[in-house]
Amino acid sequence: MGNKVAIVGIGHSVFGKRNDVSINELAWESISVALNDSGLTQKDIDFYTVGNYGLWSEEILTAVTVGEYAGLKCGSLKTEAACASGSAALKIAMDSVASGNSRIALAMGVEKMYNSPNSTIIELIGRAGNYFWEFENFGLTFPAYYALHATRYLNDFNAREEDLCEASIKSHHYGAMNKYAQFHKEITLSDCMNSKYVAKPLKIFDSSPITDGSAAVILAGEEEARKITDTPIYIESQGSATGSAYLGKRDDFAGLEASRRAAEIAYKGAGINDPTSQFDLFEVHDCFSIAEVMAYEDLGIARRGEGIKLLKEHQTYHDGKFPSNPDGGLKAKGHPIGATGISQAVEITKQLRGEADPGRQVQVRKGRALQHNVGGTGHYAYVTVYSRRN
Amino acid sequence: MGNKVAIVGIGHSVFGKRNDVSINELAWESISVALNDSGLTQKDIDFYTVGNYGLWSEEILTAVTVGEYAGLKCGSLKTEAACASGSAALKIAMDSVASGNSRIALAMGVEKMYNSPNSTIIELIGRAGNYFWEFENFGLTFPAYYALHATRYLNDFNAREEDLCEASIKSHHYGAMNKYAQFHKEITLSDCMNSKYVAKPLKIFDSSPITDGSAAVILAGEEEARKITDTPIYIESQGSATGSAYLGKRDDFAGLEASRRAAEIAYKGAGINDPTSQFDLFEVHDCFSIAEVMAYEDLGIARRGEGIKLLKEHQTYHDGKFPSNPDGGLKAKGHPIGATGISQAVEITKQLRGEADPGRQVQVRKGRALQHNVGGTGHYAYVTVYSRRN
Repeated sequence: MGNKVAIVGIGHSVFGKRNDVSINELAWESISVALNDSGLTQKDIDFYTVGNYGLWSEEILTAVTVGEYAGLKCGSLKTEAACASGSAALKIAMDSVASGNSRIALAMGVEKMYNSPNSTIIELIGRAGNYFWEFENFGLTFPAYYALHATRYLNDFNAREEDLCEASIKSHHYGAMNKYAQFHKEITLSDCMNSKYVAKPLKIFDSSPITDGSAAVILAGEEEARKITDTPIYIESQGSATGSAYLGKRDDFAGLEASRRAAEIAYKGAGINDPTSQFDLFEVHDCFSIAEVMAYEDLGIARRGEGIKLLKEHQTYHDGKFPSNPDGGLKAKGHPIGATGISQAVEITKQLRGEADPGRQVQVRKGRALQHNVGGTGHYAYVTVYSRRN
Repeated sequence: MGNKVAIVGIGHSVFGKRNDVSINELAWESISVALNDSGLTQKDIDFYTVGNYGLWSEEILTAVTVGEYAGLKCGSLKTEAACASGSAALKIAMDSVASGNSRIALAMGVEKMYNSPNSTIIELIGRAGNYFWEFENFGLTFPAYYALHATRYLNDFNAREEDLCEASIKSHHYGAMNKYAQFHKEITLSDCMNSKYVAKPLKIFDSSPITDGSAAVILAGEEEARKITDTPIYIESQGSATGSAYLGKRDDFAGLEASRRAAEIAYKGAGINDPTSQFDLFEVHDCFSIAEVMAYEDLGIARRGEGIKLLKEHQTYHDGKFPSNPDGGLKAKGHPIGATGISQAVEITKQLRGEADPGRQVQVRKGRALQHNVGGTGHYAYVTVYSRRN
């Protein structure tokens, strides 16, 4: 095995509709904070990776223009794993450090989606489905994909749309406390239930928004990390898996097989047998309310069909047994595709350091957190285990 | 430092206009050969990366659809570093193995460019320049960018268009012997000089073509590699650098600063002081004839202004002092953007194994080869040192 790798600096832009900045300026908002947080300068960075989906981007070579604006001249590359692009960027930077090929590496994600009209955005995201059959021939967009999952889930487990709304109510509760979040308004069950259908049974309030935003983390090997910071957050293990792009081929719609495989690898890598007793915090990929419920089950913290129960019993609130998305999640914090995976890593670092806002800071007892980041409908899945201890 | 990493399997599709296959089928043409070459199966692969520019692609999540078609279910990601995307894919797979996070990894590149009309292709490539100023406002496309370099070079060093043609004559000479190449016809000086201007002083025969194609390499750590093959080809070091996207900011047009920085890092990593005495083979990024000349100089095998001399004296033919691109290079073999960097790695592996076609096989004495892969006009540069010895 290579060096142990730790996060030694974090930065996060304000998420939302950011017509006030260019994509390079938006990226700099998180890179500059991450550099300050670590006390490092651009010259210390040996390699950087940019997670970006960017079909709508004003600049195509995002890694180049972001790097130039930020004063980075070392090697770089852009990566795309759909909505898991941030985790892919993290993997690349982590391996570059763990292999010894970089002393310090930067992983960041950025997306500027409000550049394009809504209908274009929906088409360009939809093309990430199974383009050949399901998007082009059947017209499936992403809300429709997840609506298939939701329909199956609600039917199989006698759950109701009201139950799904519980995920969004929680997300907005925490988004209201997170100054970096896109939405700062709490919502009620009736707000959610009365919101318009996007793709039945999913409504506006079941769906994450279009978002502009960026996030950045700086990584170093164990020895270096201890010199840089008193609170390194280690990456213990990561699992990833690639699933079928073609929903028509899947056996199971009540969960994502790729998530389960990625989790299995991550748990094995960290020596974890029972995930229900190991983590202070979960950051899960809630692009739609149903995705959050499936995540609980795919990660093994709820049994099949019982994810909804965790929500109803408030067990995934910050003071519950399985605190999940105390930053507002993709739903209320926002979902700038390329940045989301890094944003989750930033939140985990803050929480494990004990630096989150009061009212949403979890109790750190076990010192471990889990990140779950999905691209497409389980086209990609990345699950990462973080630890305060080395 | 992590594990030493070696190439243990290679595959290469026929390059050209490949309307006979989908992008997934095209990718499989090289993945299947690489698997066979290594004696491994899909289950042995722990991670794979796909290099793909793909703005014109029929599938957006290329890594997912290629993996699904090829029977790969492990973790994956797509990477883009413009025309150096293949080298970026190689870096990711290499670091994944060197860090111990993968036992075996696959790096592949694929591009299907003939999907789109020529004018669209030229626009979509041009957007990889400096979009904000130079592409959008001044209308610079890639031939025009390199024409600026060529004009400066010819003027500064009293060279002639005829001299640049020498690069293309050499490329077509070797392309004619390479069954995977797009063009199999030798050309004469008058063919080149009489071809139409694309962007003066660069003519059709100074320019690499639009190409469909794929290439794949399988990587393993040193110990594993020895079990898999008798002829592992080791990656000794890699350097990379990111340059300005904005040509208006550059001091120097007769070379690419990012190439020089990447080469410096690669040489340092492999303990090389004098590159003129170390290599049996160079694969250089000749997207235009002028790019090949600048590469000789940026890599330090010719002094500034003397790259042309190497060509005129046939020193970069396969039996010369600095054999370069005996596969036909980007010019005659073809340049499927995302695949080019992996195609160069495949050629180097073949040559160092002694498996290239007669008439273009170099003499392997030092056991070392150098790869130079550029994205944009030095927006990205990757330089990689390979060795037959560990």
